[in-house]
Amino acid sequence: MTSLTCKGFRAGGIAAGIKKNGNPDLGLLVSDVPAQVAAVFTTNKVQAAPVLLDRERVKSGTARAIIVNSGNANCYTGKAGMEAAVTVTAAAAKALDIPEDQVLAASTGVIGAPFPTSTLTNAIPRLIDALDESRMMDLAHAIMTTDTRPKAGVREVISGGTVYRIVAVAKGAGMIRPDMATMLCFACTDAHMAHGDDLRIALKQAVDVSFNRITIDGDTSTNDTAILMAGGASGVRIETEADKAEFQRQLNDLFVDLARQMVKDGEGVTKVVDLTIRGARTNADAFRVADTIAHSPLVKTAFFGEDANWGRIIAAAGRAGVDLDPDRLDLYFDDVQMVKSGAGCGSEAEARASRVLKKPEFSVTLDLNQGNGVASLLTCDFSLDYVKINADYRS
Amino acid sequence: MTSLTCKGFRAGGIAAGIKKNGNPDLGLLVSDVPAQVAAVFTTNKVQAAPVLLDRERVKSGTARAIIVNSGNANCYTGKAGMEAAVTVTAAAAKALDIPEDQVLAASTGVIGAPFPTSTLTNAIPRLIDALDESRMMDLAHAIMTTDTRPKAGVREVISGGTVYRIVAVAKGAGMIRPDMATMLCFACTDAHMAHGDDLRIALKQAVDVSFNRITIDGDTSTNDTAILMAGGASGVRIETEADKAEFQRQLNDLFVDLARQMVKDGEGVTKVVDLTIRGARTNADAFRVADTIAHSPLVKTAFFGEDANWGRIIAAAGRAGVDLDPDRLDLYFDDVQMVKSGAGCGSEAEARASRVLKKPEFSVTLDLNQGNGVASLLTCDFSLDYVKINADYRS
Repeated sequence: MTSLTCKGFRAGGIAAGIKKNGNPDLGLLVSDVPAQVAAVFTTNKVQAAPVLLDRERVKSGTARAIIVNSGNANCYTGKAGMEAAVTVTAAAAKALDIPEDQVLAASTGVIGAPFPTSTLTNAIPRLIDALDESRMMDLAHAIMTTDTRPKAGVREVISGGTVYRIVAVAKGAGMIRPDMATMLCFACTDAHMAHGDDLRIALKQAVDVSFNRITIDGDTSTNDTAILMAGGASGVRIETEADKAEFQRQLNDLFVDLARQMVKDGEGVTKVVDLTIRGARTNADAFRVADTIAHSPLVKTAFFGEDANWGRIIAAAGRAGVDLDPDRLDLYFDDVQMVKSGAGCGSEAEARASRVLKKPEFSVTLDLNQGNGVASLLTCDFSLDYVKINADYRS
Repeated sequence: MTSLTCKGFRAGGIAAGIKKNGNPDLGLLVSDVPAQVAAVFTTNKVQAAPVLLDRERVKSGTARAIIVNSGNANCYTGKAGMEAAVTVTAAAAKALDIPEDQVLAASTGVIGAPFPTSTLTNAIPRLIDALDESRMMDLAHAIMTTDTRPKAGVREVISGGTVYRIVAVAKGAGMIRPDMATMLCFACTDAHMAHGDDLRIALKQAVDVSFNRITIDGDTSTNDTAILMAGGASGVRIETEADKAEFQRQLNDLFVDLARQMVKDGEGVTKVVDLTIRGARTNADAFRVADTIAHSPLVKTAFFGEDANWGRIIAAAGRAGVDLDPDRLDLYFDDVQMVKSGAGCGSEAEARASRVLKKPEFSVTLDLNQGNGVASLLTCDFSLDYVKINADYRS
């Protein structure tokens, strides 16, 4: 991977002592100048204190820093939780000598546990000492919870002879469904958007095609946050429609890459499945069928068992609440057709499909043959390890 | 348990050879006379051949017999599947010397596998030899798939000095959600309904309070069927409102008992959880919240881990799509209050809750404190064995 540096941004991550196991749990991303900022947050009715705080602060349109911890979600922590978020951002602002309302916060971890404010504030001097242009990967490490690997990416773009970059780190391995995932994503670019609103539009579109199109277990979190900062240190201004389109293409590509990293590293995941529903009456119908199949425990355990049990996929489609004709369905595992016009393709197809299911990544395509509606989701299997990880999470 | 006999009905079950392991897989229930009949079927758009056949045949209002197999769902088997269902019921009718359209069919097992028609028809003489008033439990055994225990029950009622009975057998251990479960239930009574439509109304109401209120994994099947036959051999006529109310009460109670047996025997289940949402604006809102919590893999794996991780319950409620105020929520595990007006009740409450979660059955109650809407579901945990059972089902 190209190095993760982005001109005008410094990052860092340390073990502050929130996590009992001594792993990194506190990170910081700082812009040298007030950066343009856009953010997307969870749609859950229960929202963590830092989410509520950020929603207010991003309204100014600029930010200088994001302080983020793992190991505690600072959610459902009442007034004390909001006070904690304010205290931590104020301490970071003071140490960085920047305005308090230019510091955003994010948290991920257990919901409802008291927030260890002083553990964070005590660690801030050490965190600031650790800041460096080259330390973006430390930030990626500091936000991990059940993730087994840090997730990061970079895109380099040449615009009018000048190079600009988009760098992003992300976390998320459980509580993932297509409606923002249980995830955090922090992205920065050294380009500058000529029109302030363009950053928000670009972020929303990129989230829609990436984090809103993955599912691991169907749960959504209280802390989901994606933040994009544009500092402008490269000197590139994104102004023309062509510039904007290229920026969008690169941002989408980067986020889709991170989303795939999340599913691959999903809790207990052994199979990554590109699920496509086509031929539905509408895109919304297609999405509903995809969503139902992607969240069916019977389908997901069959993937884990490498069992080409296509009847479970058909049965899940049938209960999606969409008007479909069972006799017109076509189903494929990769390019192996399993069902044709509503009938199974027999034992030879099953044998070929079994080989597909032994692969770590494959596609499942269901054609309803009723129209032009299409939807795709990136999903995964449901394994013994998923249960183990989540039954033991707090102990 | 009182014996499962019901005057005027004979039942039987044998191993016909559909299941490779030699377990019972073919059952028959026969009424001495044309019995009044009512039935409720799956709402899945994909419906098995016997479901489609029965839908037509129950329109006559009477039936003499039900032939049922496990080990193959006869679903997504095309024209051949429907021909198979017709052939099997015709063979049973001929052997019993009754009209073909008075025989209903039901199947449960793998979807999409070719139906072994001759295995069933060859076994019919032996199945009829096995029929006896006392053999209802053999029928319960013959319809088991991943069930580890047969499910049956009886209610005895005195009406005007005369005794009548309601007897039922059921199966279902996976693919269960509240919208009929993946289940079969065959019930018979030796009472007679004075008004034909009353039987249908009674069955629907009993299913609504029982099988429509349980969930194991959120999947619904293509084969769900509940059939109630009333033969009248006891001489009791259910005619007055008081008679009807008592019949309904007993039928509800019997079905609720069977539904609880299903959840207890659910695939890999180690915890049975009575989940109640109250204080919602409407019953529909309460149901939506209950449904979301009951199907959250994170909540269910926490139950399995005996972890009083109430934050996951709150987070699931928050994504249910219902307008709720996080600061007004109260949450209880049995009678231990975990959350009060939107704040966790602390470590002593957690310690007491941990003891609750060690029990095999407990209740979870969430009060939204916004109105009078209530909903209850019987749910369960999500265990390692669930994954093992369903990853290996076909192999």
